[in-house]
Amino acid sequence: MDHIEDKTQENVKQSLQQVTDLLHKQKLIENLVQKQDMPRHELVENLVHKQNVAALQAKLDELHPADVAYILESLPLAERLQVWDLVKAERDGEILLEVSDAVRESLIASMDSEELLAAAESLDTAEIADLAPDLPQDVIQELMQSLDAQKRARLQSALSYPEDTVGALMDFDFVTIRGDVSLEVTLRYLRRLGELPDQTDKLFVIDRDDKLVGVLPLKRLLIHDPEASVAAVMIDDPLSLHPEDEAHDAAQAFERYDLITAPVVDKQGVLIGRVTIDEVVDYIREESSSDMLNLAGLREEEDLFATVKRSVQNRWSWLAVNLVTAFIASRVIGLFEGTIAHLVALATLMPIVAGIGGNSGNQTITMIVRALATGQLQGSSNYRKLLFKELGVAIVNGMIWGGMIGLIAFTLYGNPELGVVMTAAMILNLMLAAFMGVTIPIMMHRLGRDPAVGSSVMITAMTDSGGFFIFLGLATLFL
Amino acid sequence: MDHIEDKTQENVKQSLQQVTDLLHKQKLIENLVQKQDMPRHELVENLVHKQNVAALQAKLDELHPADVAYILESLPLAERLQVWDLVKAERDGEILLEVSDAVRESLIASMDSEELLAAAESLDTAEIADLAPDLPQDVIQELMQSLDAQKRARLQSALSYPEDTVGALMDFDFVTIRGDVSLEVTLRYLRRLGELPDQTDKLFVIDRDDKLVGVLPLKRLLIHDPEASVAAVMIDDPLSLHPEDEAHDAAQAFERYDLITAPVVDKQGVLIGRVTIDEVVDYIREESSSDMLNLAGLREEEDLFATVKRSVQNRWSWLAVNLVTAFIASRVIGLFEGTIAHLVALATLMPIVAGIGGNSGNQTITMIVRALATGQLQGSSNYRKLLFKELGVAIVNGMIWGGMIGLIAFTLYGNPELGVVMTAAMILNLMLAAFMGVTIPIMMHRLGRDPAVGSSVMITAMTDSGGFFIFLGLATLFL
Repeated sequence: MDHIEDKTQENVKQSLQQVTDLLHKQKLIENLVQKQDMPRHELVENLVHKQNVAALQAKLDELHPADVAYILESLPLAERLQVWDLVKAERDGEILLEVSDAVRESLIASMDSEELLAAAESLDTAEIADLAPDLPQDVIQELMQSLDAQKRARLQSALSYPEDTVGALMDFDFVTIRGDVSLEVTLRYLRRLGELPDQTDKLFVIDRDDKLVGVLPLKRLLIHDPEASVAAVMIDDPLSLHPEDEAHDAAQAFERYDLITAPVVDKQGVLIGRVTIDEVVDYIREESSSDMLNLAGLREEEDLFATVKRSVQNRWSWLAVNLVTAFIASRVIGLFEGTIAHLVALATLMPIVAGIGGNSGNQTITMIVRALATGQLQGSSNYRKLLFKELGVAIVNGMIWGGMIGLIAFTLYGNPELGVVMTAAMILNLMLAAFMGVTIPIMMHRLGRDPAVGSSVMITAMTDSGGFFIFLGLATLFL
Repeated sequence: MDHIEDKTQENVKQSLQQVTDLLHKQKLIENLVQKQDMPRHELVENLVHKQNVAALQAKLDELHPADVAYILESLPLAERLQVWDLVKAERDGEILLEVSDAVRESLIASMDSEELLAAAESLDTAEIADLAPDLPQDVIQELMQSLDAQKRARLQSALSYPEDTVGALMDFDFVTIRGDVSLEVTLRYLRRLGELPDQTDKLFVIDRDDKLVGVLPLKRLLIHDPEASVAAVMIDDPLSLHPEDEAHDAAQAFERYDLITAPVVDKQGVLIGRVTIDEVVDYIREESSSDMLNLAGLREEEDLFATVKRSVQNRWSWLAVNLVTAFIASRVIGLFEGTIAHLVALATLMPIVAGIGGNSGNQTITMIVRALATGQLQGSSNYRKLLFKELGVAIVNGMIWGGMIGLIAFTLYGNPELGVVMTAAMILNLMLAAFMGVTIPIMMHRLGRDPAVGSSVMITAMTDSGGFFIFLGLATLFL
């Protein structure tokens, strides 16, 4: 059994550790050399240093591109570029495909046009299309010229589809056969081909106009009598996608029907590409993490080791919105400065009302955003039912927690009316939170906007300003 | 081309619409009947009603189990159970597997032991194991007795693995061959089998002790000379998993190496099961959505149409924690009631300091939680680098936004010292948010806890109490 390597996660972590160790060793050597005032070029000649670099390079060469990508993502910028320099040029392309968008940007920024062109030329058309948005315009131009006519047309069409469509996910690596041949002939044809594209679980059956007429799963090819014809054995009503379909919907179809690949056809039914599960998995990962980042008010995925400047840019917009909403909440309090001056306890208690409302509203909104993302909630069909349920939850929570905190306020300040106002304000603010938590994402969805973006900031704004207004307003009226 | 159905998402949405329409029609009929004081049993006999039920049933029968699951998840409880009653009993099992945990619970609650037993018996061992945590104990007991010895042993072992391990993900549907036979013999063997398990992309090659010695991808089986031996063509160092491996790590291996299936072996290298990409996709979906729900302070995925009581139960714990932290923040303000009585503007301005700190801290924490989840951040190796970067971002943001808000405070209240205190408090609270945003999740990860759970509530607690303390403290000292 010694030849069965255990290639799971532990191994990647070990590789990362080894690379980090080698990098640190190198740094030590460099520091030592610097202290001895040895000129830079002698350092490079230094034997220990050379051995170390060789060890690092050997380690990187034996790793899967995805593992190199993982190591690059985990390293701070300086060390990342040091490792990137040591990666063999012919592997640059496949590794660039594997790293996250943010890290890819940092790597591409360190390469000149020539290196980028060489990296891109090692990839196939669909892969180049994935990389293209991050490449400088002049590299893309040159690349286009270096491709043959079919590839250029494919690249142009792949680039023409918006990011979140099936067209942007698809590749062109598929094997087609005719329905009128036998399985035996198909088997011989595959042997002659000598290679099948990755992830191939089915062959696409087309007619003489290149229209898709069915799919032949390899499973069926293997178990049926070789004498049978493809047409007799194939699935003749396969799920097919259109390049304009939303990637989100295609991903749901893959999840729902446990697909590995699916053909993509144009409006005339002509086969033009395929989508594979590995692309879908990447899409699902990105989609759910962008929902999470958006809810938290981050514009996009951020390189963990981005510069301060880039991080400020990525985060400033929601902070600015938050500043405006916090300022509005502050002005609401400002309206009641007279009441507060009269009873300072109000200033002490008001953040409780606002805080619980915000927390509860965020629970509701996260649930609704998720339900909209998974498609369980279709626009507003069950809006009223949901609203009543959430209002019910708010009233129950308001009575329990509001009652408790009202009691505490009464005990602390010996003022029963203050306790009652506190409880009433809690109930009302939780109801406001429930109403907004259901309404905001459903409204945004109906307006065709992404309900994850900014929902959290909006609900917090509502429950802050609303909470202060309700609590201080009730206090002004009744205390 | 008319025989190529377009089975994408649009179609499922249409099905949901049709089912909803039929349900509403039925309700109309029932209402009509009720108004005419027709007794209940006559309603059932009513022809229109019967036709409608038949149409609904026919519609459900033609749908994929995953689509029925989707419809069940989208319907409020009463209508959901109405549809569930119409689903053919023999499909109950596979549909229960497809629905979300929360909805599954509601369906199982409506079934008696006999129905549950029948549903479970239609499934294979790995599927029963998936369902088991939701089944009543007596059903599981009876089920165990009805299984043969091998299946019972498999079910017991599958149930013995904790939820987040490979053992809980794996199934037992795989085809094994010996290395010393030829591809030709293998092809004949597969034809004799007459069926291959879903998702099969490779055969597992074992020796006479059932130890895994390699894998034979179907691709290789198809393209190589039939005379060649399996041992010559197979991959002899395949990635293999252990049942104790963490599911999270296995999922990352699937993503990284674009796997479709992977063999699972025990410590002796004996093949005991396999993991498939469809299970991994479900796992990735659940993992990322539970991170999102946890960050928002929801204990687990909630049925959109859960009862008020269940929703209160799912959400109360974080609300309680939040109440305690809000109360602490309130007590911090209480310390400074004298200062506030002296200058009421402080009460008006203090929520801005706390709010911006919370928002900024949540941005940082979400980023770190994601980096820990994807494995890019390994414990604390780069802790200091990250901390300095985040503190840098905090200082820049503090000077920009704090300076702006300080200026506004000065303009509003004509008090330059107040403006300076405001700016200083903002910078300090943003630095606190950055420090906590990096430290909390990394500490939790090091302590072996899930960094997503409660991080958001904790950071908000820190930035609220901290923000009030810093702002009011500075005001007490300098105003």
